[in-house]
Amino acid sequence: MKRYIGIDLGGTAIKGGVFSREGECICTMEVPTLVERGFEPIAEDIARMVFQLAAENEKSEPGHVTSIENKAVGAFSRESLKNICSVGIGIPGIADGVGFVKFCTNLAWTGVPLGERLRGYLGIPVFVDNDATVAGYAESVFGVTKGAKNSVFITLGTGIGGGIIVNNHIYSGSNGAGSEIGHMMIGDNFYNCSCGRNGCFETFASATALLKYAEFRLSEKKDDSSLVAIWKSGQLTAKVIFDEAKKGDRLANEVVDRLAYYLAKGILNLYDILDPEIIALGGGLSKAGDFLLERVRTKLQGNTLVKSIQYGDIVMAKLGNDAGIVGAAMLGLNYL
Amino acid sequence: MKRYIGIDLGGTAIKGGVFSREGECICTMEVPTLVERGFEPIAEDIARMVFQLAAENEKSEPGHVTSIENKAVGAFSRESLKNICSVGIGIPGIADGVGFVKFCTNLAWTGVPLGERLRGYLGIPVFVDNDATVAGYAESVFGVTKGAKNSVFITLGTGIGGGIIVNNHIYSGSNGAGSEIGHMMIGDNFYNCSCGRNGCFETFASATALLKYAEFRLSEKKDDSSLVAIWKSGQLTAKVIFDEAKKGDRLANEVVDRLAYYLAKGILNLYDILDPEIIALGGGLSKAGDFLLERVRTKLQGNTLVKSIQYGDIVMAKLGNDAGIVGAAMLGLNYL
Repeated sequence: MKRYIGIDLGGTAIKGGVFSREGECICTMEVPTLVERGFEPIAEDIARMVFQLAAENEKSEPGHVTSIENKAVGAFSRESLKNICSVGIGIPGIADGVGFVKFCTNLAWTGVPLGERLRGYLGIPVFVDNDATVAGYAESVFGVTKGAKNSVFITLGTGIGGGIIVNNHIYSGSNGAGSEIGHMMIGDNFYNCSCGRNGCFETFASATALLKYAEFRLSEKKDDSSLVAIWKSGQLTAKVIFDEAKKGDRLANEVVDRLAYYLAKGILNLYDILDPEIIALGGGLSKAGDFLLERVRTKLQGNTLVKSIQYGDIVMAKLGNDAGIVGAAMLGLNYL
Repeated sequence: MKRYIGIDLGGTAIKGGVFSREGECICTMEVPTLVERGFEPIAEDIARMVFQLAAENEKSEPGHVTSIENKAVGAFSRESLKNICSVGIGIPGIADGVGFVKFCTNLAWTGVPLGERLRGYLGIPVFVDNDATVAGYAESVFGVTKGAKNSVFITLGTGIGGGIIVNNHIYSGSNGAGSEIGHMMIGDNFYNCSCGRNGCFETFASATALLKYAEFRLSEKKDDSSLVAIWKSGQLTAKVIFDEAKKGDRLANEVVDRLAYYLAKGILNLYDILDPEIIALGGGLSKAGDFLLERVRTKLQGNTLVKSIQYGDIVMAKLGNDAGIVGAAMLGLNYL
């Protein structure tokens, strides 16, 4: 039975899984990334993980593997990969069409030949793409945007990531640097983006942005908000702000409202550039659910460019964290 | 010999032409639009134009036709269209996949069945698309973006229009409302866009934006700029502002500089969303040539998201006004 392996490479952990063409998960594996080792040892561990997952896949009762085998990569048999069609890797950065990683902040990688190295170790097709793109592809194959020819996936986390699907395929642009929608500049903001520019979408509508704006407001003047005490005790998080907003706190609601306003503004820009059939929201902030969704929809109403058009609906993603590995596995479907 | 007919439907004139598959122009035609007549008579004139162009195409020395035949549309023979593969129409508005025009400001059309009506009259394939998209497609088939798989075309005129090419094909989104890049919101502006929103790209970087900002600055305070006298005499135009900037006038240069800054900002957003291989600038302002291009390139330098990436070059479009009809004709190539 032909299988697809997906790897979700993060700053903390490397997660992997073996999947059927239909997205059924056969077995999984998770080990620490240990970023400080640098590129080559991590690439070797990913190769070991692929061999170990392929071996687990052949067992009568495959399960979850939690440690890397202490064995040279060259000592694994390539023959053991005979049932694996391809390996896909989602990275928190930008890679080109052959898997050359141009940029990967969390891993401190700039210009490493991840795809090439792994093809050398494994001898099977290897695809590398941005993690948000991979999660967006997973949603389009098995999730909430399934059936839509053109869709956009927005991850609202520490930053904002994006995945663009055009004609049922991933669109990443000429250098793999497209769908970086978190850096679309949509206004003037009171602090600069980590990229060095001002006004990036993610400085208005990510979890970090929510927190920064709350702190800005709290530091600005005396306020009777329930957030004051929480802030002073160092417990302020995006979740707490949403919780207090739900309880009716005025300042918390103003902060959430500002985020919803700019989230809608970014979505309006995506409507006017890409006009997708549907837009899915994922990442940590999507846990706020209808409370956030309702506000965003209200702010979109009456503000779309062509009033007579029914623009794409905004929905919450449904695959959650699993989207990372299953989406990476399905890169084989996208590119093969 | 199979031919393609292209129609450029504008607020003033309806232009048409017959083209070979290679873009060779066989014959052309131009008649006034007479917008006030409303949809049906204009659709009939487009049908007549197609029949007349097809007849002209069959002549031994086809030329330029300047008047509409006074004859019922039904009286033309469909047999006369036997050498015409398709008709493409570029409109200053938004149409969906079957040529239903959702919105067309200059013609005061909202919801008219242009494609359906013409297919009824002609009995051959008819495609309708936005005029900037059509011009962008022409550039990608015969012009300055030829050979690029993914490109963006930006028309800098009264407003800003856009054409997006993905995998060598037009991308217009699910409702045909994509590539409306002129309405991407990129900042806060001192006046609202005609669409009712604030901060649209075209309120910063179109010919209208240039003029409005110059007038805003001139009305604000006393200035020794050469623009003062020109403004007072009612002769201020985008061209004059560029001319005075080239002569070294300080205020004219500040005004042009602001436009270049925001044009670069919009382009940076397009880099981060679409990462095209190349971006072409067309429309009236593109006549400013290298004077504008150099400034835009300077403002892009050092401000791209990933410094190690060579993002798409910015170039001036080369087909000019002809892009409208030849691009419309080539819609047949895109969709058939």
